[in-house]
Amino acid sequence: MLEILDLSRKLDPETARVERRRLGEELARLQRAAFVHGLPALFVFEGLDGAGKGDSLAHLVEWLDPRGFQVHAPRGPSEEEALRPAWWRFWLRTPPRGGLALFDRSWHGELVQRRLDGTLDDAAWERALAQTREFEQQLAADGTVVVKFWLHVSREEQKRRVRAWAKDEHQRWRAELARERREHGRKETLRVVEEVLARTHVPEAPWVLVEADDDQWRRVGVMRGAADALRRGLAARGVTVADPSAPDRAAVSPPVAPTPDTLPPGFAIPVDSPLARADLSLRLDKADAQRELAAAQARLRELEFTCYARRQTTIVAFEGWDAAGKGSAIKRLIGELDPRGYAVIPVAGPTAEEKAHHYLWRFWRDLPKGGHLAVFDRTWYGRVLVERVEGFAGEEAWRRAYREINEFERALTEAGVVLVKFWLHVSPEEQLRRFRAREANPDKRYKIVPEDWRNRARWPQYVEAVGDMLRQTSTAAAPWAIVEAEDKPYARVKVLRTVVDALERAVGRDAKS
Amino acid sequence: MLEILDLSRKLDPETARVERRRLGEELARLQRAAFVHGLPALFVFEGLDGAGKGDSLAHLVEWLDPRGFQVHAPRGPSEEEALRPAWWRFWLRTPPRGGLALFDRSWHGELVQRRLDGTLDDAAWERALAQTREFEQQLAADGTVVVKFWLHVSREEQKRRVRAWAKDEHQRWRAELARERREHGRKETLRVVEEVLARTHVPEAPWVLVEADDDQWRRVGVMRGAADALRRGLAARGVTVADPSAPDRAAVSPPVAPTPDTLPPGFAIPVDSPLARADLSLRLDKADAQRELAAAQARLRELEFTCYARRQTTIVAFEGWDAAGKGSAIKRLIGELDPRGYAVIPVAGPTAEEKAHHYLWRFWRDLPKGGHLAVFDRTWYGRVLVERVEGFAGEEAWRRAYREINEFERALTEAGVVLVKFWLHVSPEEQLRRFRAREANPDKRYKIVPEDWRNRARWPQYVEAVGDMLRQTSTAAAPWAIVEAEDKPYARVKVLRTVVDALERAVGRDAKS
Repeated sequence: MLEILDLSRKLDPETARVERRRLGEELARLQRAAFVHGLPALFVFEGLDGAGKGDSLAHLVEWLDPRGFQVHAPRGPSEEEALRPAWWRFWLRTPPRGGLALFDRSWHGELVQRRLDGTLDDAAWERALAQTREFEQQLAADGTVVVKFWLHVSREEQKRRVRAWAKDEHQRWRAELARERREHGRKETLRVVEEVLARTHVPEAPWVLVEADDDQWRRVGVMRGAADALRRGLAARGVTVADPSAPDRAAVSPPVAPTPDTLPPGFAIPVDSPLARADLSLRLDKADAQRELAAAQARLRELEFTCYARRQTTIVAFEGWDAAGKGSAIKRLIGELDPRGYAVIPVAGPTAEEKAHHYLWRFWRDLPKGGHLAVFDRTWYGRVLVERVEGFAGEEAWRRAYREINEFERALTEAGVVLVKFWLHVSPEEQLRRFRAREANPDKRYKIVPEDWRNRARWPQYVEAVGDMLRQTSTAAAPWAIVEAEDKPYARVKVLRTVVDALERAVGRDAKS
Repeated sequence: MLEILDLSRKLDPETARVERRRLGEELARLQRAAFVHGLPALFVFEGLDGAGKGDSLAHLVEWLDPRGFQVHAPRGPSEEEALRPAWWRFWLRTPPRGGLALFDRSWHGELVQRRLDGTLDDAAWERALAQTREFEQQLAADGTVVVKFWLHVSREEQKRRVRAWAKDEHQRWRAELARERREHGRKETLRVVEEVLARTHVPEAPWVLVEADDDQWRRVGVMRGAADALRRGLAARGVTVADPSAPDRAAVSPPVAPTPDTLPPGFAIPVDSPLARADLSLRLDKADAQRELAAAQARLRELEFTCYARRQTTIVAFEGWDAAGKGSAIKRLIGELDPRGYAVIPVAGPTAEEKAHHYLWRFWRDLPKGGHLAVFDRTWYGRVLVERVEGFAGEEAWRRAYREINEFERALTEAGVVLVKFWLHVSPEEQLRRFRAREANPDKRYKIVPEDWRNRARWPQYVEAVGDMLRQTSTAAAPWAIVEAEDKPYARVKVLRTVVDALERAVGRDAKS
């Protein structure tokens, strides 16, 4: 299969940019449709060292809603995993309906490695191939889209890349790892790879081979493969996803009548609220913001590697008004990060299992591993916000929660975790403008739901709850940052910079990994 | 606190037996009420080596429904745990509403050990005590019953026990461990223990001190402490649990009118069903059964240790007709086992998270660790039984499931797991007799629900589904055992013996750990 690939294929940067944007926007629509229709998907990335697995992943997730995918980078079984049957750790990572699981290396890479190392005799090898097919077919039969990417790189290009790693202090460890793996030789390795590809290439879980010598060609190839797979998966369920630029789009999405405003008449933020001090006139010129954002993102990426190397864990907690821009701030925050180093945790109403435990239980459960970054899109503060305002928690319970939360956060910061907490603040007037804009845009209309209008009617209660929260849970080790979010560019830059500052304070301003 | 204990306290075996039965029956009622009213409870067992923590636990759970408790024996943080803040692994093990978590050693034992080892300076020690109080108080404030048992043993008795371990080949490792721990000396150790007890003895999470030199006294003391705690926890919620032997009991539980039988008229098991071959006249004399049961339980306990030492994992899967006696067979199966070595996994309708995954996902997730025993009370066969009969799974899906399940089980047995599958079979007539007996008994009436009568109406469909299941999933590595369960003593002995046989085949008939 691999010999027919033409590794000289290239795309010029401008064509690639246009194509990536087109595919990226489609992928975002497909992901949303997959979520709505409960379609799970599992993508595997395999390839020789230097083929560009991590980079392909990063360029793919750039377009996706971070609340809808999980990146897995399994490396050898852990202590716990080694005590279970071999497939346990992969079964546990299969995506839920509507979710997307992305594997940077997988059971396939391990299979190749074990065969090369000689730990699989012919019978075990046959059996392992059968188990692999079985695993993927069971998922596919259950409705999961399963697609596997083999990124193929030439001998010359691979050598060049590994040499480049060796010269980069951040990447040197990768070069060393690659050299170790080289002991089996390219020819022998590819012989085994070929056999795995051929024998696990089934209609329900196909391999997509991508020429990977040219970065642009590879990135576009991966995005196209991903979009094709999701599109087919949705089509099999009778779902087609319309392109909003299609001419007949307006006809199928007629404008909706604006909902009457629900804000209590005459409402204004009381002057004694901590929110009243936020200067909502703060703005940033778009070009300046772009520049500052890019610089901060680049710095954060460096810090991500430094933190990983030093086992420095980070938690970023987002709260704020509906439509204050949490989602887009999170997107910018993680925009340039290696997706293997972070997870975005969307917090919605608790599941039955979560409800059966202490309200902090699920946040304890979701704490990141040492060296990783977790971004909580809404947080444990729900206890003193929505649960208080809606009466889901009794007064005694939410009053007690300030101390409990302070203790929870103290346990984190004492364990060395960097904890950054954001309240994204907009005026009620700006919120209304954003609600209206969403109503008017058929592609964004899904973002505005009746609950948003109900919450808006409760601004007075929420302002009080937010004020109490800010006053009682802003501690030295875990202070709140109020983000003036009336101007989106300003808010995004402030978020990025606040996180960068906090990490630089933790690991040192000149820290490199 | 400890000096006031009178370690010469004793109970004669007959008084203890009567008292244990009385408390045990009350504990069973209290546990059921806690489940119904969603009351969570957490019991901690601490004490010096040889104090009898494991034995106390075993004598406590003997009376409990194994589906309602979990035993945790935390030993140092694992690789995964060490990458999270220290309390993560304990928060994850907090009980759900209605559940009971039992800790054989806990954060308290670790705290004592770290203080003795000198790894906690005064500030860290103060902080750790504060965190301990905080953790327990947060749970208590959320409604969890938190009780901590300190089992206190005299120097002489402890020495005697450790010497006895050293002479027993099964227990020698415990003697060695205890000797290592002795390096700090009893006096120094108890000084630290005293401080932990005093400073974490709060009304919402009290210590119960139990004199442990006499086994009988200790067992009764622990059971009484547990019953008192649950009774108080329920009373705080306004729930009182009536003793069925109380004279006014009949007045509050009037007899109910028998439900009309729902079995289709004229139904009989078709002769071509694999169930038709079961000889339901098989019986065992009660005394014989008792003797055989005791012998098999003792042997199984030996095998439990052997399997633990050899990392031999076991899974026992129970399916069968409603009222066929699954619950009581499971109780006998685990009756003499060390509760730290097994878990009973009750399988009910899937939660939202489970529904969002492949139907086998939750069974993969719940696979036991190497060396442990998992008992599934109902299983993955739900796919081809209730899901088929009730139409929750489409025909294509349940037909596919036979292969999927065979592959799942093959993955287990190939990984070395011993897998035993039971179908507990009774006649429709015997089922009716048992339903009627439950209706007539106020204490068992909760066990019979309208769903049981609905299922009974579907005997013909179930007989067909069971027949297909037995024919298509009885494989060489994972055969079905049909248990003739018309006579309960016979069924219980057959279950025990089948498991013992399977394990002896796996580890050798003369195996000792």
